[in-house]
Amino acid sequence: MTGIHFLPFEKTVKPDGVKNILQLAQEAGLPLQSTCGGKKICGKCKVIVEKSDGPPPQPSDREREVLGGLLDEGYRLACDTILSHGAVIRVPEESRLKRQVILTSDTEHPYPVRLRPNVGHYYLEVPPPVLDSVIADRERLLLALKSTYGIHRPGLDPFVLQKLPDTLRSGRKGITATIWDKREIIDLNAGRQDGLFGMAFDIGTTTVVGYLMDLLTGNKVSVKSTMNPQIAMGDDVITRISFCQEDPDGLEKLRASIVECVNTLIAEASAEAEIDPSHIMEATVVGNTAMHHLFVGLDPQYLSMAPYSPVLQEGQNYKARDLGIKIGASAYIHLLPLKAGFVGSDTIACILATGLHKSKIPTLLIDLGTNGEIVLGNRNRMLCCSTAAGPAFEGGHIRWGMRASAGAIERLKIDPITLDVKWETIYNERPLGLCGSGIISAIAEMIRTGIILEKGNFSEEIQSPRLREGEDGREFVLVWASETATKHDLVITQKDVAELQMAKSAVYAGATLLMEQFGGGQIQRILLAGACGSYIDPLDACTIDLLPACETDEVTGVGNAAGHGSCLALLDKNKRNEAERIAGKTQYQELAAASRFQELFVSSMLFTSALDYQDDF
Amino acid sequence: MTGIHFLPFEKTVKPDGVKNILQLAQEAGLPLQSTCGGKKICGKCKVIVEKSDGPPPQPSDREREVLGGLLDEGYRLACDTILSHGAVIRVPEESRLKRQVILTSDTEHPYPVRLRPNVGHYYLEVPPPVLDSVIADRERLLLALKSTYGIHRPGLDPFVLQKLPDTLRSGRKGITATIWDKREIIDLNAGRQDGLFGMAFDIGTTTVVGYLMDLLTGNKVSVKSTMNPQIAMGDDVITRISFCQEDPDGLEKLRASIVECVNTLIAEASAEAEIDPSHIMEATVVGNTAMHHLFVGLDPQYLSMAPYSPVLQEGQNYKARDLGIKIGASAYIHLLPLKAGFVGSDTIACILATGLHKSKIPTLLIDLGTNGEIVLGNRNRMLCCSTAAGPAFEGGHIRWGMRASAGAIERLKIDPITLDVKWETIYNERPLGLCGSGIISAIAEMIRTGIILEKGNFSEEIQSPRLREGEDGREFVLVWASETATKHDLVITQKDVAELQMAKSAVYAGATLLMEQFGGGQIQRILLAGACGSYIDPLDACTIDLLPACETDEVTGVGNAAGHGSCLALLDKNKRNEAERIAGKTQYQELAAASRFQELFVSSMLFTSALDYQDDF
Repeated sequence: MTGIHFLPFEKTVKPDGVKNILQLAQEAGLPLQSTCGGKKICGKCKVIVEKSDGPPPQPSDREREVLGGLLDEGYRLACDTILSHGAVIRVPEESRLKRQVILTSDTEHPYPVRLRPNVGHYYLEVPPPVLDSVIADRERLLLALKSTYGIHRPGLDPFVLQKLPDTLRSGRKGITATIWDKREIIDLNAGRQDGLFGMAFDIGTTTVVGYLMDLLTGNKVSVKSTMNPQIAMGDDVITRISFCQEDPDGLEKLRASIVECVNTLIAEASAEAEIDPSHIMEATVVGNTAMHHLFVGLDPQYLSMAPYSPVLQEGQNYKARDLGIKIGASAYIHLLPLKAGFVGSDTIACILATGLHKSKIPTLLIDLGTNGEIVLGNRNRMLCCSTAAGPAFEGGHIRWGMRASAGAIERLKIDPITLDVKWETIYNERPLGLCGSGIISAIAEMIRTGIILEKGNFSEEIQSPRLREGEDGREFVLVWASETATKHDLVITQKDVAELQMAKSAVYAGATLLMEQFGGGQIQRILLAGACGSYIDPLDACTIDLLPACETDEVTGVGNAAGHGSCLALLDKNKRNEAERIAGKTQYQELAAASRFQELFVSSMLFTSALDYQDDF
Repeated sequence: MTGIHFLPFEKTVKPDGVKNILQLAQEAGLPLQSTCGGKKICGKCKVIVEKSDGPPPQPSDREREVLGGLLDEGYRLACDTILSHGAVIRVPEESRLKRQVILTSDTEHPYPVRLRPNVGHYYLEVPPPVLDSVIADRERLLLALKSTYGIHRPGLDPFVLQKLPDTLRSGRKGITATIWDKREIIDLNAGRQDGLFGMAFDIGTTTVVGYLMDLLTGNKVSVKSTMNPQIAMGDDVITRISFCQEDPDGLEKLRASIVECVNTLIAEASAEAEIDPSHIMEATVVGNTAMHHLFVGLDPQYLSMAPYSPVLQEGQNYKARDLGIKIGASAYIHLLPLKAGFVGSDTIACILATGLHKSKIPTLLIDLGTNGEIVLGNRNRMLCCSTAAGPAFEGGHIRWGMRASAGAIERLKIDPITLDVKWETIYNERPLGLCGSGIISAIAEMIRTGIILEKGNFSEEIQSPRLREGEDGREFVLVWASETATKHDLVITQKDVAELQMAKSAVYAGATLLMEQFGGGQIQRILLAGACGSYIDPLDACTIDLLPACETDEVTGVGNAAGHGSCLALLDKNKRNEAERIAGKTQYQELAAASRFQELFVSSMLFTSALDYQDDF
């Protein structure tokens, strides 16, 4: 062997004694996952050294801690292993990047939309120039616009000006001016122009979704989604901010990466719809504050330092070309307003889409993700906060946790007598791990079957081969090795339960704090947004005490509400003012400043419903 | 010989049997002049074939016509000669590009200027962010601007937004916001920012001048000028427009060429002043309508077709970056308004600089160039027109005409008895040719000495070796070959006189037409602008009947008034509104539509003052 040969990909790279296996694999374009961007945090980049020309380096303390007994089977962490000689490295099933389930919405318009886009076509007949008085082309166009549509002297983008003389003299009877916000002419074409498109984006930390919309009919023409490629530079908001601080070009790398991603979605959606991307005349963008800042090249580092100030809050209009986005040459991109460093325009868009701001009854809206944004309110008053729930809801820091992709268990059932487990996986593949809703389902079932007790500890009384001592203390076997895709027992460990307790406690405490501040009155409606939120069984959510004052029939999944909000703002310009009013009106509660939050966080760790099930014994 | 060897440059290139000598020389960077851009019109690219490996191709009809007897001396036109074998080619003195005299102005401010620039520095102290309420960086900045200076919510350029978080947290007490038009923040810097610069441009068909101005003091810091490199693609406005029509990339080539030229002037002026070009926060631009259109990438082709409509007339603000101009990243460029297809913002700037629009007495303003723009008016009323005077005033279509560069005769005196000639050349070099003022001086002197008669014909009575028959009919020898740099007699031909008659007649007729339309009242002031205009002796102008109703003491040269106007608009933003009002108020007279102009043009051909001098005999 003269190189490092990766299985099952049959690809060989040169060892250099400097780069680790993860770096070599990523450079070679292999789908080896790492959810921390190579920061030696996630422990997800497990590989198996099957052969080696020389003795492999001694395992690091972290490898011993993370891999335990797997070390004996040849497992190593790719990010911690540097080889200077040939080897054969197998990337096991569970370490491979998978097709991701991305929530794009299955309902066309979840809430009624009035079609009132911010760009429009205006067909005009412009009189020809005459010799006896000099009237410039621009002036003739503006006069015709005024007399035909009453639009008073809009600006002309420099690139549109360049099209003006030829368009006016095309020989066709009329021309079509495409006007943005009745303020600026952003395109000109001879004759009657058909086709007017817009694109709404939801830029998430993990996934990016783009909706191509027909602005003449309001129809969704194509929806495309992909992983946020910034993941290679950091798994979550905080690691990406660190990346900006550590690498002098970090901000630009992250910006370029998301711009390329958005351009790819534009190209894919346009190809599917068989339209020219230059006919996309406006785009809207929502995202959490860090994603928002990175998209427009604003340094996000102060988001992670008290007092966590964002660079700006109001909605913004950018020329697409100034951001490098490849739609119409003179088109604009509207970024919706945001509220705070950790309550972004995605949350504002969720409120907009769910109509929480018009609701008569107090409604709790939770966007479950690495940062659980929580909004509580009605049409009179809205409070919001952001809890650092951690990555558990997205499968992070969980032994067999994974993203919502093929082979992830998303729901399961434990027989109360036999403790046998029935599971459902995404795309019905052999189980690889557990995604967020699967973890919640597993822990809820373990509570209901008395395996997990009030404090989160495992029952000492239940006798079953599935409940056993493992490397991280006690663990419960959900799937035996013979049935998994990994050939290892798929377990929930005591440590996994503790991770979920932290996450659910943060959400529970945040929601409780908002309820206390909101004052009396029972919450009558709970909306769960986001990928994980939409797939969670309301009963499971109540069982694990994710939500305060929880009644199952009050809990509803609302899908990708942020994406819907982005679409609404694209289709109806008035929704943008509505979004500004929402952002202005919603009161932000900084949890870092609230000692009450710390109290609530500690006291919310318990699984109170476990007591109900224990009483059954 | 295996190549074509150019003397005196000692440079050898490969003959290819396809490219002509002019193209080969230009590609090799040799200073072989051609004022028609290789279109086989100007006849200025004369070269001498000193040796040849094979027989040179037969002279074309054009070469026979242009070169006449010079053919026997080995002269050829480089643009008409294609060689497929080795040769030695000499580029004679008169065919070489020279250092050009470009009028930049010797007076600091010809008219009083109030320093009121459109950009300013605003020093601010912005309170730090606090934890108990989220105020975005942008919001804090805007609040401080409002409370300190009463400036209400200016926009922020996207690139400035990117500087915002770090600038606010620089650790310095205050920051400096650079604000454009009180409307948009175009730069941000920590601490008190010194240095605020602007640059005013005058883009002429032949020359481009840039004035670097200190916007804090109003001082001119550096002035740089150069030939307009578009000359390589066409000598005058009409040939450049043809270039756009013939070459599909012509417009873009011309645009890129002038943008590069302007960027070079910016770099040179900045280097001389030892400033960073990114501290230039605004620029103003004037030019004739074709130069204006080419600079911003607007197709000029309709300028040359009836009814000669420009694409736009109003003043425009462009982001410098949208035009590719390398000053401050977020800076603006202001283009002054124009009037018509052939009355550009340079003419508006001339009016602005000379204060014609405020004048109590009727004033005639003439910008002598290929297009002679003429304005007549006072503070109550202004008329303007453009005459296609042709290139004679710039040395074009004149046997020994040349641009105003080293060796050009700019003034001369003919002894009325001996007919001996005393001349002055630019930079006191040996005479190479005649520039515009030299041609006018020569013809005026020839009128005053009775050599040229009323109709423009040469005297048959005067006997002198200097007055003789030449190839183009009669000619007068100004300088004998022994004294010239070319070793050829430097003559004024009958054909040269006819060319000047056409040019002066166009100006005379245009001015007369405006005077007729203006109605009664004697013109009391005549201003001559432009390079040629400023160097002309008022007496010469009157002698050749360039100007109607001409009294010598009423004629004044006003230098590069267009450039001054550009500077004024840079230093005092109110001048921009003044320019709009001038453009709006001035009435344009299209001469192509006026049969009266044709009558006047024909009747103005005579040199009426010749009669006075003939009477002396």
